[in-house]
Amino acid sequence: MQAPRRVGTGTNQEAVRRHNLGTVLRHVHRAGQLSRAELTRRMGLNRSTIAALTAELETLGITERTGPATVSAGERQGAGRPSTGVRLAATGPYVIAVDLRVDHATVARVGLGGAIQQRAHASTAGLAEAWQVGAAVATLIRKVVTDASSSAPLVGIGIAVPGMVRRTDGLIRLAPNLEWHDVSFSSVVLAALGVDIPVMVANDANLGALAEHERGAGVGVDDLVYISGQVGVGAGIITGGHPLEGVGGYAGEIGHLRFDPTGPPCHCGSTGCWETAVGGPAIAAAIGSALEDVAQLPQHLRQLTEASPELRRIGGDIGRGLASIINAFNPQLVVLGGYFSDVHPLVRDEILDGLTCAALPAALDSVTLTVPSLGDDSVLLGAAEAALDPLLVDPVASIGTALLDVPARLAG
Amino acid sequence: MQAPRRVGTGTNQEAVRRHNLGTVLRHVHRAGQLSRAELTRRMGLNRSTIAALTAELETLGITERTGPATVSAGERQGAGRPSTGVRLAATGPYVIAVDLRVDHATVARVGLGGAIQQRAHASTAGLAEAWQVGAAVATLIRKVVTDASSSAPLVGIGIAVPGMVRRTDGLIRLAPNLEWHDVSFSSVVLAALGVDIPVMVANDANLGALAEHERGAGVGVDDLVYISGQVGVGAGIITGGHPLEGVGGYAGEIGHLRFDPTGPPCHCGSTGCWETAVGGPAIAAAIGSALEDVAQLPQHLRQLTEASPELRRIGGDIGRGLASIINAFNPQLVVLGGYFSDVHPLVRDEILDGLTCAALPAALDSVTLTVPSLGDDSVLLGAAEAALDPLLVDPVASIGTALLDVPARLAG
Repeated sequence: MQAPRRVGTGTNQEAVRRHNLGTVLRHVHRAGQLSRAELTRRMGLNRSTIAALTAELETLGITERTGPATVSAGERQGAGRPSTGVRLAATGPYVIAVDLRVDHATVARVGLGGAIQQRAHASTAGLAEAWQVGAAVATLIRKVVTDASSSAPLVGIGIAVPGMVRRTDGLIRLAPNLEWHDVSFSSVVLAALGVDIPVMVANDANLGALAEHERGAGVGVDDLVYISGQVGVGAGIITGGHPLEGVGGYAGEIGHLRFDPTGPPCHCGSTGCWETAVGGPAIAAAIGSALEDVAQLPQHLRQLTEASPELRRIGGDIGRGLASIINAFNPQLVVLGGYFSDVHPLVRDEILDGLTCAALPAALDSVTLTVPSLGDDSVLLGAAEAALDPLLVDPVASIGTALLDVPARLAG
Repeated sequence: MQAPRRVGTGTNQEAVRRHNLGTVLRHVHRAGQLSRAELTRRMGLNRSTIAALTAELETLGITERTGPATVSAGERQGAGRPSTGVRLAATGPYVIAVDLRVDHATVARVGLGGAIQQRAHASTAGLAEAWQVGAAVATLIRKVVTDASSSAPLVGIGIAVPGMVRRTDGLIRLAPNLEWHDVSFSSVVLAALGVDIPVMVANDANLGALAEHERGAGVGVDDLVYISGQVGVGAGIITGGHPLEGVGGYAGEIGHLRFDPTGPPCHCGSTGCWETAVGGPAIAAAIGSALEDVAQLPQHLRQLTEASPELRRIGGDIGRGLASIINAFNPQLVVLGGYFSDVHPLVRDEILDGLTCAALPAALDSVTLTVPSLGDDSVLLGAAEAALDPLLVDPVASIGTALLDVPARLAG
């Protein structure tokens, strides 16, 4: 999510300074607190440059200085004064993260460092129209900012949706299980809030991948696939350390890989997509759960101690589908998110059997299957990371467009 | 193929200078000739910086200065002296490109700008061992450098192979149709040549994608898939302007996406992979060509004026497989390489029908199918680009390790 340096473009001093300012902040965002000596070491810049950069972040109200007393003894051994440290400001900038699912929404106020400061949750079952869901989300947003400091700036809102989102403008092209087509949900939410701040809408699996890569099971892993099992099935893909988006932002629709041409029709119009074999309705049927309960699959799955033969058969299908994904993307890590994290312990052997018989050995050798280390918050924290990204790319510009006096402005 | 700036790393003046030197060269490599004014505009740097960078490339023998007389009239309208230009040196650095196929090899001497200076070709049918093929390739390499200038430096060798290549060291993990396992073909070729220069071995489809992206049908397209149909089926993928490699370098094995679980066994050990439906042997059977002739499929296909019912059925299977690829990667462009470029005109409608019934509309809307604009040379020129890459990243270092007096050294 770093601003890429365009191929064929020269670099000048101002670009270097802005890059470095964002990079200092990204380090502190990841680590929480760092000594200036450590920043100097990690960035390969000299002490005075680091001092100037951290002073600017402090002036912007984003970070605070910590005294040398908090710096470890080991760092004091070098020549000169002991290094002071940098940490995130107590009432620094924050974002709103929204995890919109098929029948409920979770909203959180999240600071730098991925700290969830306040959260709220509501059912959206029965709300058919996007504006009704938008109003419900706005109510949750108002709720989570009530205790925010009036001096802390709100830099943006990140919204995860179970659908295909156009990357240029965040338009939801299709959210099949919400039955939304071409919905500008960012406009809906801003209209309901009555304020104008940056809103980032993105696919839920892409955000799950982002969060697990930034601060979850995939830290330090440059090639990972996060599989999202909600009602439908999708994937967020990180390749070479960067999100794989595709030209429109729709990459990763692995629920619609061809799986069995004799299988049932899929809602997408095709037949026998992988989602028809391993999607929410198939899992619900396999565990004898009502189809209306498909959004509550994780809770139902967690009560099981043993898999039915039908669920074991689905385990094999999960493995055989993952084999295609591994052959296509050659990831180091596959993170089984959503209900897949609850299916996995029940049918682990069946998944591995299916995978082993269909994945190419060279690709299979280098991959590990795991579950999200951020638990059910991967997607929510991914939405926060997406909303924080402009701040991490250009702190000065982002603080300049942030909303102040938030509790009063949003209450009014 | 630009050296990425690592996330979290600061930038200093020396890194900026080396980046800019390589970037100037990359611009000239792509354009062939540019005025300094145009370089100044494209790179956003000032004239004196551009002048210093081009002077350094000239000193290295990589580029030459052109007089203002060759600069277009439109560029003279600005204030100050008319800008001099930069072009590739007549006897500048070059690489050897090798396109190794199942039963033959093509070798070329290729200069900056992708200019093929000399080429040679030989059958490798009946050469079972890698060292035998390596000796044949070395003979072709000696042939294509006979007319090279003794003052022109050879910076490296790029070799395309139809197999899975480990990206860290170029080891060929598996080339199924050559029946090679864990072959270090770079060592084999260097041993046969008796010299030590950088050798880059890579998957043929990945190199086809690279060349079509750099100077073929995909110029200016950041998200493309190049489908390789030789005997087996694979893909090279560019996403966000960068090659999708995967952790080991094995990404893009789309011949082994699950296609029809009731299909025939695949050589990979699985059943009903896409390659069993649309691979060389299936196409050969569909056009009544002998299985031994599978490497000559393009020639046979070009003689056909009409598709058999069996080939039309395969056309539908090509479309349905491409739908999975489009759903997974959301490319702007799919380049049908190898024999697919000869199949395409015969079954265009069937491919589109298969594609339309199985691809998601949002992904389908933004994709175009095409054939390579570099013809049968995509993979060869991709091998050249891979071998040139170190020179474009760090011209000083690459010239420093280049081989001089090449005709004499390799003849000896």
